[in-house]
Amino acid sequence: MKPSPFTPKAFPSLPPIEGFDMAVAKAGIKYEGRTDLWVLRGVPGTEIAGVFTKNKCPGAPVDWSRTALNAPVEPDAPRLILVNSGTANVFAGQKGRDAVIACAQGLSGTFGGRAESVFLSSTGVIGVALEAAKVRAKFPEMLAAMHSDGWEAAAHAIMTTDTYAKGAHIRTEIDGHSVQINGIAKGSGMIAPDMATMLAYIATDASIGQTALQEILSDCVDISFNAITVDSDTSTSDTVLLAASGTVTPDKIVTASDPRLTGFKAALKTLMLDLAHQIVKDGEVASKFVEIEITSAVDDKSAKTIALSVANSPLVKTAIAGEDANWGRLVMAVGKAGEPADRDRLSIRLGDILLAKDGAPYAGYTEAQGAAYMQRSELKISIDLGLSTNSGVATGYARVWTCDFTHAYIDINADYRS
Amino acid sequence: MKPSPFTPKAFPSLPPIEGFDMAVAKAGIKYEGRTDLWVLRGVPGTEIAGVFTKNKCPGAPVDWSRTALNAPVEPDAPRLILVNSGTANVFAGQKGRDAVIACAQGLSGTFGGRAESVFLSSTGVIGVALEAAKVRAKFPEMLAAMHSDGWEAAAHAIMTTDTYAKGAHIRTEIDGHSVQINGIAKGSGMIAPDMATMLAYIATDASIGQTALQEILSDCVDISFNAITVDSDTSTSDTVLLAASGTVTPDKIVTASDPRLTGFKAALKTLMLDLAHQIVKDGEVASKFVEIEITSAVDDKSAKTIALSVANSPLVKTAIAGEDANWGRLVMAVGKAGEPADRDRLSIRLGDILLAKDGAPYAGYTEAQGAAYMQRSELKISIDLGLSTNSGVATGYARVWTCDFTHAYIDINADYRS
Repeated sequence: MKPSPFTPKAFPSLPPIEGFDMAVAKAGIKYEGRTDLWVLRGVPGTEIAGVFTKNKCPGAPVDWSRTALNAPVEPDAPRLILVNSGTANVFAGQKGRDAVIACAQGLSGTFGGRAESVFLSSTGVIGVALEAAKVRAKFPEMLAAMHSDGWEAAAHAIMTTDTYAKGAHIRTEIDGHSVQINGIAKGSGMIAPDMATMLAYIATDASIGQTALQEILSDCVDISFNAITVDSDTSTSDTVLLAASGTVTPDKIVTASDPRLTGFKAALKTLMLDLAHQIVKDGEVASKFVEIEITSAVDDKSAKTIALSVANSPLVKTAIAGEDANWGRLVMAVGKAGEPADRDRLSIRLGDILLAKDGAPYAGYTEAQGAAYMQRSELKISIDLGLSTNSGVATGYARVWTCDFTHAYIDINADYRS
Repeated sequence: MKPSPFTPKAFPSLPPIEGFDMAVAKAGIKYEGRTDLWVLRGVPGTEIAGVFTKNKCPGAPVDWSRTALNAPVEPDAPRLILVNSGTANVFAGQKGRDAVIACAQGLSGTFGGRAESVFLSSTGVIGVALEAAKVRAKFPEMLAAMHSDGWEAAAHAIMTTDTYAKGAHIRTEIDGHSVQINGIAKGSGMIAPDMATMLAYIATDASIGQTALQEILSDCVDISFNAITVDSDTSTSDTVLLAASGTVTPDKIVTASDPRLTGFKAALKTLMLDLAHQIVKDGEVASKFVEIEITSAVDDKSAKTIALSVANSPLVKTAIAGEDANWGRLVMAVGKAGEPADRDRLSIRLGDILLAKDGAPYAGYTEAQGAAYMQRSELKISIDLGLSTNSGVATGYARVWTCDFTHAYIDINADYRS
């Protein structure tokens, strides 16, 4: 496939994170001659938080991992995450569920610990059961190959229709101790064939209790991975895991609101936004990267609903592809969200250019201004709802990110399986 | 524009309906050399029911008509509906609101009655105020030209990007009296540029009270115009009006549940479904007409939410364009609806072909079967959720209609304004 116009020059530098090692393998699940299997191992005591797809028909690996979040962990056992590409192992009936059990048992048999606390993710085509035997056969050689410096290789092993591997690294401090965070992700914007699962794995050497970790992860997912959309379709396999080995900071912080975590939370948000934007920007189908900002909504939730209504509107997305500053469609998309809005108070900006004010085209705006702006590859659309509450101007705020709908979107999604 | 592959051979025969006359005119609002204005007049005593867009940023004409529904009517005055094409008069600020008042006052001034009880619809480009003077200048000649046999001309006058005029006629009985219903509609599947407003006007000579008429119309809209979707975008101007002159049946029926209305309600549903399907089938962008049927949902509302989730999924719609029997995307779209569903109970059929059963590919299904079926231009996708309730199998049911996403969709919507 044609690489995305947003392809980064190089994979970022991801150093080892204390407490973690890993290996990749070529199991031949679907692809020939490339890696399709990754094991991440955290030292005993590593805490893991997870967020999964809200799709009501999730894959068997998601069911398994959701249970693993609350499964008892042997205190001396390693924490294990296994990811394969090539098949999503979704809608594969009993065969698919059996494969999940066989992989988890095989992995814990080789690496130690209980099968029930192993995390599993699968990504690829739907309706094809994972062949557990192929996967299990690789565990001994993967155990022998475990090493700490494999993040770029891991990012490649989990790719499906991605046109580039996605990774990010950030350094922060907790209570004076230097802490690192690495993250890798896959997904070409949820737009690619067969749901293009969005997967992300984040590891840190910070020492944070599971409950606090889960709360922090959920908050960060809301404003990063859950604030990107390419076509409104929700994968059956989406998974984000955050593992904290606790190897560098002396005492475990157990409350998410602990002020010592302020810097860590900000760093994690930055890293997750970076990965989320990389996902939207991949997709050989996208020619524009678009930020939608909503201000003066009744609350943040309402603002996000409206932002996603705009970001998911096919009429808005095709206008962007056509470099058409079609603010009429923006008004429509605001209105169809069903949230409080007042046509006669709306203002719309493209970057700094005011297009519409108080529910009518702005007198000083010219089509030429809009047309020039729309030629950029990164766009910002700001819509101020101008609402008031009893206590003054409404402050509901949201930002989401999306891309345009192009001919290539139709091509790849219409022709994929044939 | 290229005509739709579903273009009917001829406009259907719509006879005059007792109690109604009409005229069209060329006001030059945007188009040159074609009609763009229509007045429908009902005799005094004509009852009118209406359903309008749920978009929170509706056009000024929609605001006006919604108020007109409850406005007092002079008993001896005619009932009037005025429709223009060429501009939607939406998001045009005070100028747009002034134009609405001027048109309503002009119309009632020429034809009689109160301005407040006039119904107005505008369809066309957004952000351009209607020039009321152009419209009002035509009223005297329209008054002089009023005649009862103008339905086909009316259907043409209200077109924007439609590739064919849409009309339907049906005859039924109320309490032994023969009753007629005519309907015209416009909208090329909500897919066409700038929201392609869906407008429909239905007239009958039956004698039905306004409250009953409103209830019947709302019920029929739910399973017809509100059960079609092309791209999930909701126009700011959608309007359906049903006018009953009461000229042929002696006593006015005032209760929607009156058993004498059974035949009328069935006939109205048939006529409205016919018009709704004509709208989906228009759109030079559609190559497939698709019925989505959901059975065994927890209730009808849940079934419809799931049906629309499937019908609006860009991944499902591009697969249909590519003639790919991609049932994995159907599973995803069922799950993303957020309604009760159980992956392991789902069954999926294309026409009579069973693809998947109990949450797994059906053993007897071959890809060749699916591929052959998908080449048809009219498709039926049936998804049985297989849910149970305390009292047995769940009976929630819904049908919706949609079309595929093609390259032409991108073309027309990306390039329209430039």
